[in-house]
Amino acid sequence: MKFSINRSVFIQNLTDVQRAISSRTTIPVLTGVKISAKEEGIYLTGSDATISIEAFIDAKDDDNKLKIENTGDIVLPSRFLGEIVKKLPSDIMNVEVIDNFQTEITSDRASFKLKGVNGNEYPRLPEIDAKQTYSLPTDTFKQVVNQTIISVSNQEIRPIFTGIHFEIGNGELKAVATDSHRLSQRIMPLTMPENAGDEVLDINIPGRSLQELIRIVDNNEDIEMMVTDNQVLFKARNIYLYSRLLEGNYPNTDRLLPTEHSTTIEVSASELVNAVERALILSHEGKNNVVRLTITNDDIVLSSQSAEVGNVEESINVVKAEGDALEISFNPDYLREALKSFGQQNVSIGFQSPSHPFTLLPSDQTDNFNFVQLITPIRTPRA
Amino acid sequence: MKFSINRSVFIQNLTDVQRAISSRTTIPVLTGVKISAKEEGIYLTGSDATISIEAFIDAKDDDNKLKIENTGDIVLPSRFLGEIVKKLPSDIMNVEVIDNFQTEITSDRASFKLKGVNGNEYPRLPEIDAKQTYSLPTDTFKQVVNQTIISVSNQEIRPIFTGIHFEIGNGELKAVATDSHRLSQRIMPLTMPENAGDEVLDINIPGRSLQELIRIVDNNEDIEMMVTDNQVLFKARNIYLYSRLLEGNYPNTDRLLPTEHSTTIEVSASELVNAVERALILSHEGKNNVVRLTITNDDIVLSSQSAEVGNVEESINVVKAEGDALEISFNPDYLREALKSFGQQNVSIGFQSPSHPFTLLPSDQTDNFNFVQLITPIRTPRA
Repeated sequence: MKFSINRSVFIQNLTDVQRAISSRTTIPVLTGVKISAKEEGIYLTGSDATISIEAFIDAKDDDNKLKIENTGDIVLPSRFLGEIVKKLPSDIMNVEVIDNFQTEITSDRASFKLKGVNGNEYPRLPEIDAKQTYSLPTDTFKQVVNQTIISVSNQEIRPIFTGIHFEIGNGELKAVATDSHRLSQRIMPLTMPENAGDEVLDINIPGRSLQELIRIVDNNEDIEMMVTDNQVLFKARNIYLYSRLLEGNYPNTDRLLPTEHSTTIEVSASELVNAVERALILSHEGKNNVVRLTITNDDIVLSSQSAEVGNVEESINVVKAEGDALEISFNPDYLREALKSFGQQNVSIGFQSPSHPFTLLPSDQTDNFNFVQLITPIRTPRA
Repeated sequence: MKFSINRSVFIQNLTDVQRAISSRTTIPVLTGVKISAKEEGIYLTGSDATISIEAFIDAKDDDNKLKIENTGDIVLPSRFLGEIVKKLPSDIMNVEVIDNFQTEITSDRASFKLKGVNGNEYPRLPEIDAKQTYSLPTDTFKQVVNQTIISVSNQEIRPIFTGIHFEIGNGELKAVATDSHRLSQRIMPLTMPENAGDEVLDINIPGRSLQELIRIVDNNEDIEMMVTDNQVLFKARNIYLYSRLLEGNYPNTDRLLPTEHSTTIEVSASELVNAVERALILSHEGKNNVVRLTITNDDIVLSSQSAEVGNVEESINVVKAEGDALEISFNPDYLREALKSFGQQNVSIGFQSPSHPFTLLPSDQTDNFNFVQLITPIRTPRA
């Protein structure tokens, strides 16, 4: 294998595929990046067995300044390769496998020799033989992921909750995530592939795979998605992201969403975020990380305290308030992340009781669950 | 105590005095910031017993929007005070000691109550009764500190080496630091105070105190320095930095600086820094962190290797080379920091032998030691 290439193009693509590589992998070859030089261009691959990311650098694209002298494969240590190429002195870098998989990387006067591994030892990417290709508008899909991924669980005890659940069919995509303390749901309209039929696609994609996907994609083009029994493939510009699907049936979460409220308040999401961020300075010092909302006829007050440091109280500016007086306690980090997912919108917060989950909805769309955040309160002894 | 103040002015000054506060202090009251409201303005003080920083916020300066209703003192927990004032909603904040040293901080609708400590429990600042006030030009003094602080030791075993040694007299300031592996020296001209006489001031200032000082000062005004037997006080704009001096006699380091060289090369400091940063990617992986410079008649080559990863070689671009062939090994981090202290200048590197310290001098000032970096090589078995 021997080629020369525009160094910044190589760095950009290397950075993308390195997102799949975990420093905690137990499979030695997966600490490396696979470089394949073929007639048509260079393929870079990184993987952690759950996610694999492949980038294609096209020899026909003049900006890539790619000259392939010999085709071939090599696996090079990911971290060192990254550090080295970022520090090379010139705009052009040369890569050549010499003997016994030793690989020379040169640029101007600098010359590195790295110990490589036979490309054959790198796991093959899964074959994706899917009937349909779904076309996801990047902007909206990114928003859907960002608004639901906050409720993905990081506990491996119930693996299915470490993913986002997708139901795709009948012209829409529904995304749900829950860690059993909170739930996020977002439904977006989606143009179905022509050969889709009436079938509803029901899959669970690991949160980490979606996180890496939305970091990589540009907003300009649609993301193509193909699904098989246990794999999903996303294609965006010259990047292919393969992810394992999570096995198991996702529970029906529709029944968890309350439709009746005894108390409702409408607030600016961003204003309330600021108040919550003030309150959690003290709640983070307490044992329980609890903030309390007290709704009376006269006032709505957010408060928190720490036995060691002191306490905080803030009267909240509301657009509208309806229903009964209420005192409810919750984890302020959950409320903060939920509110942030609404950006600059006004949000309608609906309560049933101090012990029932409460919901956040966009205040101009309270008659459906196209976008909802649900949070379970914390029961505290009455002060 | 009761006052209101421009919040960003308070934050700026709080941030300055917080530099003195250590999270590892064993004296509880020193985890706090002392706030003193007097007729003329507010004093904020932070300290770790070695360094104390005091900021004065003038009531007469309209930009400070300072209104003092009641004078008094309080000590408030530094970290919380900082987090709280940064998150407050409005441009104006109010501070009031209520009862039992509980202090209310309000801004717009937000109200914090913090547990404070009696201001009397805070240690008094040292009295500085100095005969002379030295006036240090800020730009040059910052440079002097930055160019020598790299060689300050972080080993508390020999406390005197954790500071920079200053000799001030006869129209110049000489700064020396060494950790016994390397040495930095810089001499700058200095206008002496009129009443200075012929006496040479000989003091050792902790590296950390100087580090914090140069972070705080602007380049616009001179720094005023006053010295007593065991304290130094720096005054820059509205900030007073007090530091303990290090006790003991600094060794005579002049005899360590070699005046004869068997090999000399002149290089661009910034170009060589880049090559060293490439070489240390691999040396940092080895057990010894060693980079080698090989000077022959034909070529000057920087090289390094790691048994696990591979090796690197780079031919160095030199402006001039004189003297014998040489192969010398050293810690690349030391060379990197020494080279960086020369900025964009050309540097003349003089060697005696593979086992003797080598020196770096500005290539246009090789006939004196007004600015010199010295590095002890590492003896390695011959390859």
